Amino acid sequence: MSDTIAIASPADFHVHLRQGDLAALVTKHVRQGGFRLAYVMPNLKPPIANAEEALLYKAQLQAIDPTIEYLMTLYLSPDLTPDEIRKAKRAGIVGVKSYPRGVTTNSDGGIESYETYYPVFEAMEQEDMVLNLHGEIPSDAATNTCVINAEPAFLPHLRKLHARFPRLRIVLEHATTRAAVECVKSLGDTVACTITAHHLVLTVDDWAGQSWNFCKPVAKFPDDRQALRDVIKEGHPRFFLGSDSAPHPPHTKSTATPVHACAAGVYTSPILLPLVAQVLESFGALDRLEGFVSTNGRIFYRASASAGENVVIRKVQGKRVEEKWVEGEQSVVPFWAGRDLSWEVVE
Amino acid sequence: MSDTIAIASPADFHVHLRQGDLAALVTKHVRQGGFRLAYVMPNLKPPIANAEEALLYKAQLQAIDPTIEYLMTLYLSPDLTPDEIRKAKRAGIVGVKSYPRGVTTNSDGGIESYETYYPVFEAMEQEDMVLNLHGEIPSDAATNTCVINAEPAFLPHLRKLHARFPRLRIVLEHATTRAAVECVKSLGDTVACTITAHHLVLTVDDWAGQSWNFCKPVAKFPDDRQALRDVIKEGHPRFFLGSDSAPHPPHTKSTATPVHACAAGVYTSPILLPLVAQVLESFGALDRLEGFVSTNGRIFYRASASAGENVVIRKVQGKRVEEKWVEGEQSVVPFWAGRDLSWEVVE
Repeated sequence: MSDTIAIASPADFHVHLRQGDLAALVTKHVRQGGFRLAYVMPNLKPPIANAEEALLYKAQLQAIDPTIEYLMTLYLSPDLTPDEIRKAKRAGIVGVKSYPRGVTTNSDGGIESYETYYPVFEAMEQEDMVLNLHGEIPSDAATNTCVINAEPAFLPHLRKLHARFPRLRIVLEHATTRAAVECVKSLGDTVACTITAHHLVLTVDDWAGQSWNFCKPVAKFPDDRQALRDVIKEGHPRFFLGSDSAPHPPHTKSTATPVHACAAGVYTSPILLPLVAQVLESFGALDRLEGFVSTNGRIFYRASASAGENVVIRKVQGKRVEEKWVEGEQSVVPFWAGRDLSWEVVE
Repeated sequence: MSDTIAIASPADFHVHLRQGDLAALVTKHVRQGGFRLAYVMPNLKPPIANAEEALLYKAQLQAIDPTIEYLMTLYLSPDLTPDEIRKAKRAGIVGVKSYPRGVTTNSDGGIESYETYYPVFEAMEQEDMVLNLHGEIPSDAATNTCVINAEPAFLPHLRKLHARFPRLRIVLEHATTRAAVECVKSLGDTVACTITAHHLVLTVDDWAGQSWNFCKPVAKFPDDRQALRDVIKEGHPRFFLGSDSAPHPPHTKSTATPVHACAAGVYTSPILLPLVAQVLESFGALDRLEGFVSTNGRIFYRASASAGENVVIRKVQGKRVEEKWVEGEQSVVPFWAGRDLSWEVVE
């Protein structure tokens, strides 16, 4: 194995870039982490509801860092119409993100059942837009559903949607279970799946009492993590990186009061490509790096890499991850803060 | 239902009273919480290894509050001999606590396999001492074991011990799963089980990102919680309260750094009897209160209640739980801090 690796224009197909001062801080971390494309989540306050808002948000991000390609999404809600889908398509919007109600950050307006959205999905299928699914059902003691089994319990919805809209491209986001991996593999070529960097590292034990590793969906059993690793090692073309990198003010991550839990989210953007390289190397899949962080996702999204956009990483002896990034009053603490990485991006 | 209930000498068959200044603060909370007997855990620093240390510890606790009956335990380790068991029995020590290595607070000296302890267990069986089992196996990715399935994975050890030592009284401590409840029910009359107050309330979702609700064993699925509630509602005589109330300095409960997780433990002592009454009432088992917090455990432990030790609780309109108890430099935050209870102990 060479000491350097060149990757054609790495693409992060699921990232939270936020708004205002926090966006100013974290949007620059996409490039710093070795990436050239950001597939941008719409769960702002208020959520991105239509093409006009998405274009405005895109312009704000471009003003912060014009060197990144931003693929924009809308937030699925009852206000979204087939007409708006067609308008969004003409405006270059790529996807629509569905959040189940209340399961993660800014998802209070999330969906409760899919049937009411069938006209929207029909328009998306016709327009060839992508449906991005946060694949969890809300917790419910009556059905024994909690954060551990919320993803497997969602999979029948995915199967049903795919059966009803076989030509609609669907991405199951941030899969965390063997059941999800097997489900996506069993479905047609229009169904893909993102995997985060941190879910390749963590299991339940890592977030039990450790809020810095707490995110939604939560990391699951060791065997689930193994399934995520195996499908990458196999080089399956419908599985690719979506970091779900999600910045939160540090005190909301570190400290719980008896009445306020910590925020859900793991922030990986500034170290993303070295982190993924190190993790894939740890389970013998470094040869799958370019497929996982670029080729597979770009093919599924029909987002070809621009010429001359190779990013090079090189092996290093312990590059310490910053404890914190600060800009003005905003700050973020990255995953693996204070630990050493064995790869770095060549500037 | 009357507005007051008298309970014959409530007994907490699993409690952590700690050492030094912290013991001075929390030992008094046993009585404040409505209890008259404390079955005291031996996981001090260093652990209680022999009869002499247990008697010294008991004297320290009696000096803090002489009105409580303290039943003392030893910490199972390779240093414990059959001779020491016989000596402990003569000294009035009641039980021996087994911790799997590294799974909870101060368990670094815990056991790895039971066979080497068979001579000790034989002596305990002869002397009629009680074996208290923390029923979890250590996490291990190779066997897909993590905090969620660590208890069910332990149950074969319980079955094997009971088969080998059928007359040895064994208590599976702080059961959290349907599998554990069903296992204990299926075994003979020498096997009992404690249940905490907080595991009757919490599920995984409650400690995900909320370190104040994080303890070991962790709370499990809603269906597991239902099994704990059902076996109490059924009035099964081999299931009784062991609070596992475990105080920690508040900052170690509230705040995680990227390298230090929060401490595991939920502190219920000062509100224990009202809390248990409210929780049992919530699932229609208030008529089982005396059995659960006194009779069942006292029969199993052959620890009859002294005459005139009734404790009375009465219904109240929202009695606020203190945010914090402070004494000198020590402080503790109770479970349900700032929330309202619907029962109180009549002083």
